[in-house]
Amino acid sequence: MSNFGFLHLRVVNPYEAAFREARSAVGAAELLANAEEYRTVAEAVADCTLVVGTTAVRHRELQHPLRQLEYGARLIRKKLAAGKVALLFGSEKFGLSNAALSHCHWLMRIPTCESNISMNLGQAVAVCLYELIRDGKTERATGKVERATAEELERITMMLLEAMRGSGYLERRPIADVEERMRRLVRRLNLPARDGVVWLGILRQIVWKQRSGRSADSAR
Amino acid sequence: MSNFGFLHLRVVNPYEAAFREARSAVGAAELLANAEEYRTVAEAVADCTLVVGTTAVRHRELQHPLRQLEYGARLIRKKLAAGKVALLFGSEKFGLSNAALSHCHWLMRIPTCESNISMNLGQAVAVCLYELIRDGKTERATGKVERATAEELERITMMLLEAMRGSGYLERRPIADVEERMRRLVRRLNLPARDGVVWLGILRQIVWKQRSGRSADSAR
Repeated sequence: MSNFGFLHLRVVNPYEAAFREARSAVGAAELLANAEEYRTVAEAVADCTLVVGTTAVRHRELQHPLRQLEYGARLIRKKLAAGKVALLFGSEKFGLSNAALSHCHWLMRIPTCESNISMNLGQAVAVCLYELIRDGKTERATGKVERATAEELERITMMLLEAMRGSGYLERRPIADVEERMRRLVRRLNLPARDGVVWLGILRQIVWKQRSGRSADSAR
Repeated sequence: MSNFGFLHLRVVNPYEAAFREARSAVGAAELLANAEEYRTVAEAVADCTLVVGTTAVRHRELQHPLRQLEYGARLIRKKLAAGKVALLFGSEKFGLSNAALSHCHWLMRIPTCESNISMNLGQAVAVCLYELIRDGKTERATGKVERATAEELERITMMLLEAMRGSGYLERRPIADVEERMRRLVRRLNLPARDGVVWLGILRQIVWKQRSGRSADSAR
């Protein structure tokens, strides 16, 4: 990270012993000391307007758009002009869980050989960050629309789930992994920040009405 | 190496204990077992038509042309069509000695930050090899996503408006030109076709529930 000028490391539930005792590479002690710890992916990416997951797998029943590193990096550079972007890496052994992936807008993969797609974590990070800074030029955003942050999208997701429950949708059509599915569904909306506020307001009102209906029922 | 399809590792005077006991990364055991050992750099590169050294240093009294990785990799790719190319890495601590450098036709560097130019050896190798196989052609999005039709969007808009009315939203917060506004709001979602179906189903269920609540009220 420090080789390529990326200074903000956020870790979710790190294996404490390994993380705290980690010997920093030359010149990166400060970066490691300043790393921020979070309990959940949702909290770690809350202020980001784009969350990109990394994966070695090409054809996991793909529920996300999958982009080759070079093209993905170009999109990320554009987004960086307007807000924070999170690049999400999973554990070396298991990669990102489906729950973690559901926080991502899309996924990115390094073009490895079919015969060995599983990369060392540190090397995968190095390659991704190299590609991000490669031509050095960070494109300027030209009147870009500001997108809703991960925190806002998460709020919308939770409210949507509540509206679905309140409407009986999930009883009639049970959905496996409904929370993750809805999280991805909302991420795919690519919501502008100002629209996020509107959608949240609409959902809140729907939920409020459902609740007042229920309490009227139970008061009877 | 194996991630990017490079299979021929040659080592010069390896630290025997470390080298033989090295645990290979997933899928690379064969590569390591087949590594060839040489006593000198000269022997290791003997059959190569181009020898490129790697260095973190920018201004060592440069006796070699120094090329940025991206440009250097392009030259290497051309040469590879005609013969073997050696990419020479030094030890993690000291880099390449002047003696080793003297076997090189030219040098290549990874564009690291001024503040931390010293890279982990494995990461430096990964970045160089990635650049060698990166094809430069940036593919467009993988398989265009089909978008919802105007008809589907209109159906969603109408259902959304009904859900808003049913929830009392429009009484609490009257909106001028609400239909047009909501139509634009829904268009900005840029919905994939398959998501359109899901959203419509959710809204329908919400509206259905609102109606059944109302009819229960009026039946009283």
